[in-house]
Amino acid sequence: MDTTLESLGDPRIDSPLKSVQFVEDSSRVLMDISVESLQQQMAEGIVPVSFVKAGPRRNIYFDPRKLKCALVTCGGLCPGLNNVIRSIVLTLHHGYGVKNILGIMYGLQGFIPSYGHPVMELNPEAVAEINEVGGTILSSSRGPQDIGEIVDALERMNIGILFAIGGDGTFRAVSRITQEIRNRGERISVIGVPKTIDNDINLMSRSFGFNTAVSVATQAISAAHVEATGAPNGVGLVKLMGRHSGFIAATAALAKRDANIILIPEAAFDIEGPHGLLAFLEKRLSERKHAVIVVAEGAGQEYCCIEGCDESGNLKLGDIGLYLKDRITQHFKSQGVELNLKYLDPSYLIRSVPATANDSIFCGFLAQNAVHAGMAGKTNMVVGMWNEEFVYIPVDLVVSSRRQVDLHGKLWNSVLEATGQPSFKPPE
Amino acid sequence: MDTTLESLGDPRIDSPLKSVQFVEDSSRVLMDISVESLQQQMAEGIVPVSFVKAGPRRNIYFDPRKLKCALVTCGGLCPGLNNVIRSIVLTLHHGYGVKNILGIMYGLQGFIPSYGHPVMELNPEAVAEINEVGGTILSSSRGPQDIGEIVDALERMNIGILFAIGGDGTFRAVSRITQEIRNRGERISVIGVPKTIDNDINLMSRSFGFNTAVSVATQAISAAHVEATGAPNGVGLVKLMGRHSGFIAATAALAKRDANIILIPEAAFDIEGPHGLLAFLEKRLSERKHAVIVVAEGAGQEYCCIEGCDESGNLKLGDIGLYLKDRITQHFKSQGVELNLKYLDPSYLIRSVPATANDSIFCGFLAQNAVHAGMAGKTNMVVGMWNEEFVYIPVDLVVSSRRQVDLHGKLWNSVLEATGQPSFKPPE
Amino acid sequence: MDTTLESLGDPRIDSPLKSVQFVEDSSRVLMDISVESLQQQMAEGIVPVSFVKAGPRRNIYFDPRKLKCALVTCGGLCPGLNNVIRSIVLTLHHGYGVKNILGIMYGLQGFIPSYGHPVMELNPEAVAEINEVGGTILSSSRGPQDIGEIVDALERMNIGILFAIGGDGTFRAVSRITQEIRNRGERISVIGVPKTIDNDINLMSRSFGFNTAVSVATQAISAAHVEATGAPNGVGLVKLMGRHSGFIAATAALAKRDANIILIPEAAFDIEGPHGLLAFLEKRLSERKHAVIVVAEGAGQEYCCIEGCDESGNLKLGDIGLYLKDRITQHFKSQGVELNLKYLDPSYLIRSVPATANDSIFCGFLAQNAVHAGMAGKTNMVVGMWNEEFVYIPVDLVVSSRRQVDLHGKLWNSVLEATGQPSFKPPE
Amino acid sequence: MDTTLESLGDPRIDSPLKSVQFVEDSSRVLMDISVESLQQQMAEGIVPVSFVKAGPRRNIYFDPRKLKCALVTCGGLCPGLNNVIRSIVLTLHHGYGVKNILGIMYGLQGFIPSYGHPVMELNPEAVAEINEVGGTILSSSRGPQDIGEIVDALERMNIGILFAIGGDGTFRAVSRITQEIRNRGERISVIGVPKTIDNDINLMSRSFGFNTAVSVATQAISAAHVEATGAPNGVGLVKLMGRHSGFIAATAALAKRDANIILIPEAAFDIEGPHGLLAFLEKRLSERKHAVIVVAEGAGQEYCCIEGCDESGNLKLGDIGLYLKDRITQHFKSQGVELNLKYLDPSYLIRSVPATANDSIFCGFLAQNAVHAGMAGKTNMVVGMWNEEFVYIPVDLVVSSRRQVDLHGKLWNSVLEATGQPSFKPPE
Repeated sequence: MDTTLESLGDPRIDSPLKSVQFVEDSSRVLMDISVESLQQQMAEGIVPVSFVKAGPRRNIYFDPRKLKCALVTCGGLCPGLNNVIRSIVLTLHHGYGVKNILGIMYGLQGFIPSYGHPVMELNPEAVAEINEVGGTILSSSRGPQDIGEIVDALERMNIGILFAIGGDGTFRAVSRITQEIRNRGERISVIGVPKTIDNDINLMSRSFGFNTAVSVATQAISAAHVEATGAPNGVGLVKLMGRHSGFIAATAALAKRDANIILIPEAAFDIEGPHGLLAFLEKRLSERKHAVIVVAEGAGQEYCCIEGCDESGNLKLGDIGLYLKDRITQHFKSQGVELNLKYLDPSYLIRSVPATANDSIFCGFLAQNAVHAGMAGKTNMVVGMWNEEFVYIPVDLVVSSRRQVDLHGKLWNSVLEATGQPSFKPPE
Repeated sequence: MDTTLESLGDPRIDSPLKSVQFVEDSSRVLMDISVESLQQQMAEGIVPVSFVKAGPRRNIYFDPRKLKCALVTCGGLCPGLNNVIRSIVLTLHHGYGVKNILGIMYGLQGFIPSYGHPVMELNPEAVAEINEVGGTILSSSRGPQDIGEIVDALERMNIGILFAIGGDGTFRAVSRITQEIRNRGERISVIGVPKTIDNDINLMSRSFGFNTAVSVATQAISAAHVEATGAPNGVGLVKLMGRHSGFIAATAALAKRDANIILIPEAAFDIEGPHGLLAFLEKRLSERKHAVIVVAEGAGQEYCCIEGCDESGNLKLGDIGLYLKDRITQHFKSQGVELNLKYLDPSYLIRSVPATANDSIFCGFLAQNAVHAGMAGKTNMVVGMWNEEFVYIPVDLVVSSRRQVDLHGKLWNSVLEATGQPSFKPPE
Repeated sequence: MDTTLESLGDPRIDSPLKSVQFVEDSSRVLMDISVESLQQQMAEGIVPVSFVKAGPRRNIYFDPRKLKCALVTCGGLCPGLNNVIRSIVLTLHHGYGVKNILGIMYGLQGFIPSYGHPVMELNPEAVAEINEVGGTILSSSRGPQDIGEIVDALERMNIGILFAIGGDGTFRAVSRITQEIRNRGERISVIGVPKTIDNDINLMSRSFGFNTAVSVATQAISAAHVEATGAPNGVGLVKLMGRHSGFIAATAALAKRDANIILIPEAAFDIEGPHGLLAFLEKRLSERKHAVIVVAEGAGQEYCCIEGCDESGNLKLGDIGLYLKDRITQHFKSQGVELNLKYLDPSYLIRSVPATANDSIFCGFLAQNAVHAGMAGKTNMVVGMWNEEFVYIPVDLVVSSRRQVDLHGKLWNSVLEATGQPSFKPPE
Repeated sequence: MDTTLESLGDPRIDSPLKSVQFVEDSSRVLMDISVESLQQQMAEGIVPVSFVKAGPRRNIYFDPRKLKCALVTCGGLCPGLNNVIRSIVLTLHHGYGVKNILGIMYGLQGFIPSYGHPVMELNPEAVAEINEVGGTILSSSRGPQDIGEIVDALERMNIGILFAIGGDGTFRAVSRITQEIRNRGERISVIGVPKTIDNDINLMSRSFGFNTAVSVATQAISAAHVEATGAPNGVGLVKLMGRHSGFIAATAALAKRDANIILIPEAAFDIEGPHGLLAFLEKRLSERKHAVIVVAEGAGQEYCCIEGCDESGNLKLGDIGLYLKDRITQHFKSQGVELNLKYLDPSYLIRSVPATANDSIFCGFLAQNAVHAGMAGKTNMVVGMWNEEFVYIPVDLVVSSRRQVDLHGKLWNSVLEATGQPSFKPPE
């Protein structure tokens, strides 16, 4: 795995940042910190993988007085978007003295003239209190756009650094945009800030908005618990975000330990049979009279699959929440048992809130480091966090695969301990 | 309208309450405070309607040392239930010295032996922090139960005062329970505390939980606004509670003024046509690119009606939220216009939260005054608030009709001013 | 008490408001709604006092196309200021079509040229999200300014309506400004929106920000309770706002019932002696090991009085919080009893938060009705709420005296019931 | 640095935990993950320091059916205490089947008979909703107690595992208690869960409650900002926790970037002189008219030092907040410049709140891993987090020194970037 960073050229300008400690490009941190695996690699003569540390560089590539930057936000909403926008603008403006900053409206659509979207001037006044509201002041859109038209627009607007805040689809676009820029011989840096509320970006131990999403998801689980205990044989069923990875469901379930069953895409489950979900639920209700089930939207797709893709190229998911709601209701009805199932689908309430203090701070770090990377002339990379360090990672590594919940790791272990739930599969 | 209160007999015991100011039964407050209407009534020789003021009475009917009380919560969840339970228990225990208090579990089911539900001992320890969580520690259930069996249970448990926290259905039961108690010559007081998250109880200018519901509903509208502004031609559609009355929808819409269209049961609306909803929405989107619609669940039932009743005898409602979601989506699709509609149905998240400080305080007043009424031997009545005074009202007046949003009153006026929305009906 | 309203002249212009229900000047509501007192007044031939109902008038005085308005916020911060500003601007702009609106910066200082403060253009964009943050975007200041210079500024800026959001001092200024305007024969309306976090404005049953203040004060009392129970003989002592009236202290104490002793300016208390505070506290600690005391800042001034006034002409208060902290600590120390007293003074944290949903809605009503009054040519009056109706009240009535907690009313009764605290005075 | 763990003996009992993944004692993670420093250590033949991974062990030492455990909370309050208590109890009860769990009341005082404090039975019902409230249901106390009496009590109550939740002083006691247990040949495990709201525990990259404290501190800084912008030349001065380390002040300042000056114990500062605080503040006010200063309580002690220690042996701190308040006020007064300084000291409001979702989850991990360690027979150690892994660390390493903000690290760098503040010291 090659973690070398691409660069537009030698940074020869003295950084205008004062008082701060500069970071060298040669500063790297290990990816894998297990002593066993490290010893094994060394025994095998393998050089352990490491990442370049993020931070301000002593020399920068762009002249701040002449530089114009652009920001764009793509894909679904995620808490913290406005914080990232605000911190990028403040760092560019106050830190580096960059006064020309444009906001591209409505995601990649904003580069395409035929949509007729305006651009927004960004400066400290324009971003003053935007962190108090959710969403993105730049709005967003889904789906790819013509790469050539995007680079045309960057040239036409004379952009030096483009900050692209988005997810997998956006980073695939970033990779192709950089390629096109290279082909044209332009000197435009493209820096990605990874956005995924699902927290499933490869090589990132945390993505912004996840902390906030878990906080709000926790409230939904509490609500489900209150509903479940508020009626005879009450069942609270909560569908949470998580198309491919159950991080939100698994993590939120740990906050108050009100959830009894957690279903995630990584762990297949039977519904019928002695080891299945329904048998366990029956037992739980007969013993405790109420139950809370949390299901990630990507779980159990074999039960509810549909076909096709959305505009961003993501596979469409069947609605496992509604499926389970109907299936469970039907099951108890057929047994003549009173059941009071309440179904909660809080996704839009989760992703649209302002960021928690914790996420705000995290967004600030990501944004500052994104600016440092762009100013130093790096390109085709994203800012991430790994082992509590902020690092720079080539875009191509990030889109190579998705991060998932390790069924043998501490998160899922903790869920199994906290819920006492079995595997919902017959022992092999 | 006869507002005279029914009583078990003369209260002859000195109240053990200290330091407080006692209220006389003869203290009454006017129902209608308009000078015009008062003058007209006087001109016509009509005695203006007035209510008995709530408050502690100097003489009480029950001997606190011998009294056993019971509490029951019925129907759907509502913020503040635990606060009412807690304050009734604390007032009985600390104020009057009543040490025997039972919680009936699972609503009226709890009186019926065949269900096998336990009862819960209630004392200050048992209710210590219950106000921090939503729902009801007594759980609840829907639907009527046999009145004779209920009174049998009251006799068997030797209950002197039953506090019934519930809505219309519960109060119809209270009326019949009281009748049965009278028939049997028992001395059992039944006091109602009105619970309706919809705020639609007759003769009550406010019911507990409404303030909290509006607070949380406001957040849902904000989320819809964030979603609407987060995509091209974004529409946030929020369904809020309100089966017969649009108080929650209308009031929540005023908090941040993010909503552009408010639909309530009281105001019929066209969907098609030049004055209809779709025409207005088209215009709004072409001008502003986003819109927020708030619809009360009981609005527009002519478009989505279904048949039948639920267990509490309430008419089943068609799902106007999903109906509008599909109708609007289809409309713009047929026109080839990009639309990003996000549908939010936050009901269970609203009704299950702990009460706001404001509602907590209000619940405390209701509970204290419910206890004062019961201790003084009143029965078949509820505690309410009218013109900022706490009052006692005969149950039968309360269930006679429902309160609705006055389309010529200050609330709806303010909504029309704030949104600028038209009537969605052709001018007559 | 004469509640007749002053007016600039006949309103002859048709209101541009659509769809709304207009209110007649002759619509009035009773001040006193007690049947007893009403009967007594009628027996004595006294005309009961009533207030003019607020609301949009069919005819207005100012031509919206030519009108310029100004807003100013004066005195200490209070939750909801930005909501009032925002709603006045939105109602003027969207409702009446008034496009020229100025914000006067830094309170009355903003009228005085020598301070050199700028003015702020106010329009929907400028007030878009200001309700999400506390304080006032117009900033504020304390203290009177020269009335002649203020009216000079109004003339110079060609203001037709001045909306003054402030307290007693501001309303005394409003009265004198109106007089000066009359003397000069100008046609400038001055409308007041009452602001007092203490909720002590005469003839107003509620002022904006109070609901929010109580919510946050509740959290401070909870914190004091947590601290009190977190150490042996723990005492949590919370000082809350309330210079002349204990509404915040008394109301907040009812929310969670964690407070054991409430001290307010209206109720004198002994510290020493068998009926005094210290004796009660000793007993409480020996029985329960912890106690929470809430003291309004204006309570017990005979123990800690100092001399002089602040810039707004308010009497300076001695710090009863610190006084009690020292006195209680000293008392238990002299007895050799371990005491863990934690002192909380959360005032700035309370008054600077954004408004609750409930207060936001209330601010919207006040602002709309303030605009309706001004547009109709009324002047020298304030918008208030009384018995759940919004009303217009002449300024001079409002400043004639302060509202205080009625020691024989339902609020204080409820506090005494909830805490069980004695009077802290020997029986007379 | 020897990170070997002490153990009571061989764990020979099969763990009753089902479905979970067991962790081997040999699993270790690196302390230092910098590639440079690792290469240097290897070049010098130094074995890099590593920690034992936390987690459930396949074999345990204590027989759950016979085991009795005790919990104690010591020192000042910290958000999350009740979460740790609750999760330890739930993990012991549901996970391992341990039914005898005692809560020691009022910290170490609870072991000493002469205080006469009761003990509390802990089981799932007793801890059901305690996570919803701040503080500790076990209460706490400061100061050491006789080690022999503590071990006497452990013997008398027949405790097998003591979970001690506290800070430095507590861990020094843990070390001595373990020594005494060894001397007596007893088989009692003592496991520490580190508690410090200041986040300054050696070898822990995060301690519980810190996330929550930062969230609430952020609100206080916002309040200071609102106050600062609410009056001419407004200054908001906030004192935050941080006796020896400025983590809370520095981190909270990053959340909204409202703070302009951050003062922490690690960074000495001049007040007078051209590089001093006052000169910078003057400049800031003349340019921007308002400023927010955040000061950690341990900062600038050379200006306000006092003598002596508190009961826990901590040095008493002078009040730098009040000192700066007076000093700044005096400075501008002497220059005849209007200044409106508002001073906020929110400590008790910060430390007494319930934990955020994020901290709740973190507390759950700590508690589960503390139980796993105790059940496996480990002793004299604490549970910590390092590089995103939960690890076990010998107590003696933890108390050897304090963690502080690295003035050359990413946190302080980010603060300097975000505020633009200079060093407040003349260049060397």
